[in-house]
Amino acid sequence: TSGNTTNLIKAAVTPAFVEQLPGANGLGLSLARLDLAPDGVLPFHTHPSATEALVVITGSILAGFITSSTNVVYLKKLKKGDTMLFPQGLLHFQIKAGSCLVSFSSPNPGLQLLDFALFANNLPSAILEKATFLDDAQMKKLKGVLGGTG
Amino acid sequence: TSGNTTNLIKAAVTPAFVEQLPGANGLGLSLARLDLAPDGVLPFHTHPSATEALVVITGSILAGFITSSTNVVYLKKLKKGDTMLFPQGLLHFQIKAGSCLVSFSSPNPGLQLLDFALFANNLPSAILEKATFLDDAQMKKLKGVLGGTG
Amino acid sequence: TSGNTTNLIKAAVTPAFVEQLPGANGLGLSLARLDLAPDGVLPFHTHPSATEALVVITGSILAGFITSSTNVVYLKKLKKGDTMLFPQGLLHFQIKAGSCLVSFSSPNPGLQLLDFALFANNLPSAILEKATFLDDAQMKKLKGVLGGTG
Amino acid sequence: TSGNTTNLIKAAVTPAFVEQLPGANGLGLSLARLDLAPDGVLPFHTHPSATEALVVITGSILAGFITSSTNVVYLKKLKKGDTMLFPQGLLHFQIKAGSCLVSFSSPNPGLQLLDFALFANNLPSAILEKATFLDDAQMKKLKGVLGGTG
Amino acid sequence: TSGNTTNLIKAAVTPAFVEQLPGANGLGLSLARLDLAPDGVLPFHTHPSATEALVVITGSILAGFITSSTNVVYLKKLKKGDTMLFPQGLLHFQIKAGSCLVSFSSPNPGLQLLDFALFANNLPSAILEKATFLDDAQMKKLKGVLGGTG
Amino acid sequence: TSGNTTNLIKAAVTPAFVEQLPGANGLGLSLARLDLAPDGVLPFHTHPSATEALVVITGSILAGFITSSTNVVYLKKLKKGDTMLFPQGLLHFQIKAGSCLVSFSSPNPGLQLLDFALFANNLPSAILEKATFLDDAQMKKLKGVLGGTG
Repeated sequence: TSGNTTNLIKAAVTPAFVEQLPGANGLGLSLARLDLAPDGVLPFHTHPSATEALVVITGSILAGFITSSTNVVYLKKLKKGDTMLFPQGLLHFQIKAGSCLVSFSSPNPGLQLLDFALFANNLPSAILEKATFLDDAQMKKLKGVLGGTG
Repeated sequence: TSGNTTNLIKAAVTPAFVEQLPGANGLGLSLARLDLAPDGVLPFHTHPSATEALVVITGSILAGFITSSTNVVYLKKLKKGDTMLFPQGLLHFQIKAGSCLVSFSSPNPGLQLLDFALFANNLPSAILEKATFLDDAQMKKLKGVLGGTG
Repeated sequence: TSGNTTNLIKAAVTPAFVEQLPGANGLGLSLARLDLAPDGVLPFHTHPSATEALVVITGSILAGFITSSTNVVYLKKLKKGDTMLFPQGLLHFQIKAGSCLVSFSSPNPGLQLLDFALFANNLPSAILEKATFLDDAQMKKLKGVLGGTG
Repeated sequence: TSGNTTNLIKAAVTPAFVEQLPGANGLGLSLARLDLAPDGVLPFHTHPSATEALVVITGSILAGFITSSTNVVYLKKLKKGDTMLFPQGLLHFQIKAGSCLVSFSSPNPGLQLLDFALFANNLPSAILEKATFLDDAQMKKLKGVLGGTG
Repeated sequence: TSGNTTNLIKAAVTPAFVEQLPGANGLGLSLARLDLAPDGVLPFHTHPSATEALVVITGSILAGFITSSTNVVYLKKLKKGDTMLFPQGLLHFQIKAGSCLVSFSSPNPGLQLLDFALFANNLPSAILEKATFLDDAQMKKLKGVLGGTG
Repeated sequence: TSGNTTNLIKAAVTPAFVEQLPGANGLGLSLARLDLAPDGVLPFHTHPSATEALVVITGSILAGFITSSTNVVYLKKLKKGDTMLFPQGLLHFQIKAGSCLVSFSSPNPGLQLLDFALFANNLPSAILEKATFLDDAQMKKLKGVLGGTG
């Protein structure tokens, strides 16, 4: 069954990490399902503790990641059955529309969604500005959408 | 000797990673020196392949990181001799002014500077906007500063 | 695209191990597709170097594994979307009919198919009998099917 | 002191795994003694979690293992003082007569004896037949000897 | 703040191992500060579970280690800012005078100080002599200084 | 066949490390045989990269190791069939008389013999004295026996 994509990003991640799948503890891998509605997006994020392998099950997906140090962009249009690897800890994203099965090289891959890490907490705007070079208006707008304060 | 901080971010990272210190190969750790001029900042970045331990040698530093999944902010004002740990792969930053010695739990920690990963390459603006929710003007401004195209 | 199941076991394994997917080298995981025709079976086998996670994409599958030391049988009838984990090195099998995506916790999981390991080589029958307790007629029959000698 | 070899396979394995030798916990290796009476055999088995190194202490031993994927047979007649390595997870056996000291690359190597995994539990014969291609009579005979049901 | 060097070896090690820094648990590294007064010395020792990277903060240090198997001596006179690596488990020492920051490739590096391991316990002199080839008078003298018995 | 014990320490170590046993590469363990003549001794040494498990094959052995940090002595009189574990990197010794089989948790355990590390190279006596607190006469005597200079 598909995840619920009636949300801000029109996307759903249904994890089978060690928390949902205790049998994965110590076995060295975990899974998740990714559903992207039309206009859905899983915006820039990282998995701090695992490499990800994605396979498209239905639809087609535009996915990309940015390399460490050299900041090179890898962009790939993936159709049903295609596969893409996202190395551990690197920023990546997936854009509409389809369903994917993703595997991780750890039972506990972690997930850091960029916009939520920056704008959905109480990190003071003055510090956030220094640490991102974003404009004040831009930060306030996204803090507003994502419930951030400070 | 201090690194050269006459640059955009008024900061210098002098790495002793495996590339600069071939003896570190296979030994499981590496080092770097971080110099922050007054008004200097090492903006949000991750090390995809290592945990970092920072010790302040001179001056004082404001440092922070964001946790995985829960997006909690850890902020710490560090003075000479103070220590802070940044777990592998998590977004973190350091703000003026002083010098630090940093150690990594890998000979090859990697470095992904957020603004450079987003704005210093040819990732098309239409995709970047979808994957970050940033405004077009904001993206163009930072692409301009950092030499990005697309 | 499905694998070709016109064979003895009416099954096809389409691997994306490190050999087929060099990018997986050092990334800690790999993938494969498993297609089972009606009456297909992937008979007892092990992956000496990886745990396997299976997800049913179409159809339904009967899968099982035997535990280490205690020889307990875990049997599960899996329908579309269901998941099962097969711990590293343990004997397991999958029976008709459907398609699965399988992930491995290593870029190089290895594969030891029981019948091929026993009957598709030149292991002398006298030794094989001692090491399996199988009857002579049974061994000869399966050596005949699988091309074994000795 | 030798293990008791008055049994079906005229062989005794005296383990010093982490269960018998708690000091081995976290130290990365374990040991066992293997005694084979005249006509003794340690039939096909795997250690899912460790490589094994065997040294013959008294007598002489015929040992073999089957490689992953290629199913090549490695057979070696070992006399006192000789050594053989059995890579992690691969099917192997040892045949009469003598005593060996075996070391494992893990405090918890595991043990899956092929005949016991197949015939000493309640795996239904119909499934067992599909997953092994063995004849019904053969399976019933070995289930009878090893106490299997189903 | 410097460690207290008013002691036998005129040296102080201020550890930030996992015991002092619980946050280091599972993060793969730890730190320590080393202060050597004029005439101070951190005599021959090993870290059984970690490689060490040393950086001189103030003063200058003479450091050395001995290689495994070949017993080659690596000696280096280090001034402020210089770095030296001591591979896991190898005998090494640091001699006056200055302060260093040391990083370890494990949260729990361990420390075995040679003289304390040999002379500060109840290892019987007769065994100690056989296992070190030291003279009886030499052993008694150092046992006296370090509080050893037997 | 026994090793040749006609030497200074009346002991012989016959290694089957990765150098002598290339098949051990990547398999996570290695072996050695230890022969101690009457009055033989394998003096204090460490294996920087492996835990050791020893089993007595003939004769009886007095073995000991010193713990990390606390310098506690573990002494054990071992007879035929007895086993002892020596954790990675800790100083240990074995004293007459018998033969042992030793296993290591790494294909490349390393070996640092204390007396050879201190006295069989060109480490200057003035530095050696500071780093060991040994008397000048004692050092010269052992340098003489082991061929050290400086």
